Amino acid sequence: MFLPYLLAYGRTPWPFVSQLGNYLGALVNWVKLQNSSQTSEGDAAQEADELLFSIVGWHALTLPQNPAQLAEARMDMLAVLLAIGLDPKKSVIFFQEDNPNHTELAWILSCITPVGKLRRMTTWKARLATARNHPEEQQVQDALKDANSEVDETGLNAGLFTYPVLQAADILVYRATHVPVGDDQTQHLELCRDLADQFNRTYKSKYRMFPLPVQLNTPSSRILSLRSPTSKMSKSSPDAQSRILLTDSTAVIASKIKSAVTDSIQGITWDPVGRPGTANLLSILAACNGDESVKETASRYQGKNHGALKRDVTEAVEEMLKGPRREFERLKGDREYLRNIAREGAEKARVKSEVTMKEVRGRIGLA
Amino acid sequence: MFLPYLLAYGRTPWPFVSQLGNYLGALVNWVKLQNSSQTSEGDAAQEADELLFSIVGWHALTLPQNPAQLAEARMDMLAVLLAIGLDPKKSVIFFQEDNPNHTELAWILSCITPVGKLRRMTTWKARLATARNHPEEQQVQDALKDANSEVDETGLNAGLFTYPVLQAADILVYRATHVPVGDDQTQHLELCRDLADQFNRTYKSKYRMFPLPVQLNTPSSRILSLRSPTSKMSKSSPDAQSRILLTDSTAVIASKIKSAVTDSIQGITWDPVGRPGTANLLSILAACNGDESVKETASRYQGKNHGALKRDVTEAVEEMLKGPRREFERLKGDREYLRNIAREGAEKARVKSEVTMKEVRGRIGLA
Repeated sequence: MFLPYLLAYGRTPWPFVSQLGNYLGALVNWVKLQNSSQTSEGDAAQEADELLFSIVGWHALTLPQNPAQLAEARMDMLAVLLAIGLDPKKSVIFFQEDNPNHTELAWILSCITPVGKLRRMTTWKARLATARNHPEEQQVQDALKDANSEVDETGLNAGLFTYPVLQAADILVYRATHVPVGDDQTQHLELCRDLADQFNRTYKSKYRMFPLPVQLNTPSSRILSLRSPTSKMSKSSPDAQSRILLTDSTAVIASKIKSAVTDSIQGITWDPVGRPGTANLLSILAACNGDESVKETASRYQGKNHGALKRDVTEAVEEMLKGPRREFERLKGDREYLRNIAREGAEKARVKSEVTMKEVRGRIGLA
Repeated sequence: MFLPYLLAYGRTPWPFVSQLGNYLGALVNWVKLQNSSQTSEGDAAQEADELLFSIVGWHALTLPQNPAQLAEARMDMLAVLLAIGLDPKKSVIFFQEDNPNHTELAWILSCITPVGKLRRMTTWKARLATARNHPEEQQVQDALKDANSEVDETGLNAGLFTYPVLQAADILVYRATHVPVGDDQTQHLELCRDLADQFNRTYKSKYRMFPLPVQLNTPSSRILSLRSPTSKMSKSSPDAQSRILLTDSTAVIASKIKSAVTDSIQGITWDPVGRPGTANLLSILAACNGDESVKETASRYQGKNHGALKRDVTEAVEEMLKGPRREFERLKGDREYLRNIAREGAEKARVKSEVTMKEVRGRIGLA
């Protein structure tokens, strides 16, 4: 059974995976997914699920980017994926922009995507709202200056409007069946299913062209900001002290955790509502320790103070990250190796997607 | 000097070139362009202008297509281009859909294309107007049924909205400098120049990335409908008797010209306003005869009647089309040859555009 998974990343590659919340929330699960999807040798009759990890540079272009930084970020992203344990022998790891089948299928799908559906995407609506509230942004200013302009959306770029179609292509080009993404991507995945279904009905043949991919809910960890522990730890918060990066040094990690916002209540208890900062530290500690539940962790610290908890959190985070960080630094220094991995991954991705595209081109009459 | 021309076709490939008005208006001029752009052997120091002829199947998808008919149409289109005298040794003739660099560049450009600019394209506005006036069209009906839908444009597909960006990519991916298209494409070419300029400024380097392509005005012939000679002869008129196809048989051509609408005035005179049908027949005759002006032609027929004029028009059209038609039929029977020509053309197009794309990818930070 051909059952690939595809993991679509956020559109700003590097910071997305690099903070601790994401590491514990998504990355660790991807590695688990990879390692559990391998068939045992005695199980040769059943084909293993295939996992594809795509680093999506074309999506990054929908937001303003510094080209030199983007070039660096995509290689760092690859190094991170390898450093945390994704294995190019088990999974297909590649740069989206190395496989032109993605943009080709995106064009084809765009011809069966109603404009109205894209206008109803909440990501697009949120963009519009942001543009409305921040008219100081250059592109929006330009739009307002233009007498012919229609309200709000005129200055936003077309890529931002159509990227859910490219996302659908990212998934369907491999006939992926499961997509482990967060809840913020649910609507995009629905669009992807709609387009798959629309294609299947428009270009019928003996067998169904695309499976309708389903969202794969991997258990997610909710690590919160170290500075305002009522919101998630985020790549985009302006306060760098609020997040731990996979690449932070030991000293930086210690300083960030030391200055984490907690409360002035004596002792440690598990009270996520009343004591969010303290609960967040307990969550991090429990997640780093793996097997232990937060409540167990909390009970161990009942008589201790925040200082002791923070010291142990620092130690646990450092213990967990030091291996991947060392591996990341090593890989980062070996550009030639990274390029080879990327080249091999792209080749596999192209071969796999070419099977789909041959069939697609035939069905639409362009082959 | 590197000076390629690129000729973008209409979005419905085959009928677009196959009617007489288009043949005399565009195709004949393309062949002239090809043959005049070749440098003589004594002129080796100056590099010849290069011509690229792209059969644009991806654009065809923005309108409803029957896949089997589309597959046939694109091969017919190639056969027509060769039959009328385009020479794959002198020009690059290829299927757009064989070169994925077009959709890749289209995606990249879409990320610097303001949505507002696309909404102001008159082709898009015309589509909206059509949708408004023909709510019986299924997709529009669907949109109206949807309670959340915004007016009119919701049911139209995203490809229809963004295809001017793909057109810009069709041109810029070869760094084309001149584009011989009709006036209906002027606004799209302006968008193309804007995007080229925007890219040049956003991703500056030692030299300018894209030249700003200019519209090449080739003298156009205005052949009118045989049934209502106040409008242009058109591929899309519901009345098949109104147009002559390059592939019509001798008998069909004779019958269409015989039933052409003229007037009941005795004798032949050149009066395009008062006698449009008669004037149209004179225009066709003069165009077929090449050197003769319409007024000279009219004066030769002063004492004759419509019957005589129609006989001579039939003969002249037949004389002009029989060679290309015979060649078209021959080529149509040789699929293997056509496939080879397409393959070689695509290879040349890919090599040429790859030079552009290498540079583009480097500048945007995705290489």
